[in-house]
Amino acid sequence: MSHASPTSRVRTTRKPKQASYDVETINSILDDALVAHVAFVRDGHPVVIPTLQARDGDRLYLHGSSAGQMLRDIAGGIEVCIAVTLLDGLVLARSAFEQNVNYRSVVLYGVANVIDDPDEKLAALRALTNQLIPERWDQCRHPSRQELKGTTIMWLAIAEASAKIRTGGPTENPDDIGLPFWAGELPRRVVWGPPQPEPDLTDSPPVPPAVLAYARQGS
Amino acid sequence: MSHASPTSRVRTTRKPKQASYDVETINSILDDALVAHVAFVRDGHPVVIPTLQARDGDRLYLHGSSAGQMLRDIAGGIEVCIAVTLLDGLVLARSAFEQNVNYRSVVLYGVANVIDDPDEKLAALRALTNQLIPERWDQCRHPSRQELKGTTIMWLAIAEASAKIRTGGPTENPDDIGLPFWAGELPRRVVWGPPQPEPDLTDSPPVPPAVLAYARQGS
Repeated sequence: MSHASPTSRVRTTRKPKQASYDVETINSILDDALVAHVAFVRDGHPVVIPTLQARDGDRLYLHGSSAGQMLRDIAGGIEVCIAVTLLDGLVLARSAFEQNVNYRSVVLYGVANVIDDPDEKLAALRALTNQLIPERWDQCRHPSRQELKGTTIMWLAIAEASAKIRTGGPTENPDDIGLPFWAGELPRRVVWGPPQPEPDLTDSPPVPPAVLAYARQGS
Repeated sequence: MSHASPTSRVRTTRKPKQASYDVETINSILDDALVAHVAFVRDGHPVVIPTLQARDGDRLYLHGSSAGQMLRDIAGGIEVCIAVTLLDGLVLARSAFEQNVNYRSVVLYGVANVIDDPDEKLAALRALTNQLIPERWDQCRHPSRQELKGTTIMWLAIAEASAKIRTGGPTENPDDIGLPFWAGELPRRVVWGPPQPEPDLTDSPPVPPAVLAYARQGS
């Protein structure tokens, strides 16, 4: 699998050291994330909404809980710009100017299309469900025909994309090294649990291993 | 302080129970977040970029590390739509259709303007620095005139905004209650640290209390 070479709008001119067009890098950021921010133009105005996302090969699926907004007045595909951002820590420098954060982000351009075919939609919903939590698709009731009809899922090709990553401590002006301020990195980590079972569970099924072991770092 | 009554584009028609136009609710979500996703239209196409944000009263400041992209070919204010999204947990239902996440989000429309006045810019940079970590402004070197010139900060009024919040366990179809699947909530929490000091610190200044106590839950 390979993505096209970077177009001008994904090519980063600022801080080029942080930019990457490597497919594995882009995919690994998408795979660590649940939420994508999807921007589109409606009546000439910018709109951005958060939505759940999942990758399957070089396709990105977008859950359409908010698709009503996107699809209003739109027939066919819709041009989107999508950002996925994971925050990894604070970067505290001796100078205000160099304060920063460590992060991994992907920005992706493309045309999103609604999935109409029921089998494709089922496969997409499976990907979104298992992105939420591994193996969940095998541990829940699959959608009825009516539910499937009531679900909107969009997809787009992961083709025009770039990643940006910042890691490590602050970049300091040499003149600032001797200043009497603490400087360093404050790493950020996500923890999950403990699981809160529904009070009306029947036959007290055990908490699934995938729930107990859940460790996703992305947001 | 009061925000205007909701306009049609911030008024939520889906799941109205989750929507809020309450100023305190909106502000508390913004205050718990570091990253905002800013969407705008460039040459008719949607663009969204992540950026650091901070609130001061009914103003939202946006750090302009990516402002070059926003400002290219644009004079004066730029129309934006901004989303701030905090993920609080997974909602695992017995049916695939009802899988969900708990979250707090704000969507905000407005016109962002670059801050030109040096004093205003300094105040905005102070707000952004202290949003990153409390009291940091008093624990770092303030920007030189040159650095201040090299920093772009935009602001917009928090006026046309709405919040959406989801909490609690899954909403299940009564027919699904007896299914033999585990259902419940998996809460998500952010932890910070331990602090990683720069190796070249002078006179080993102690780690500031605000760094040790940092507990921000937002991303």
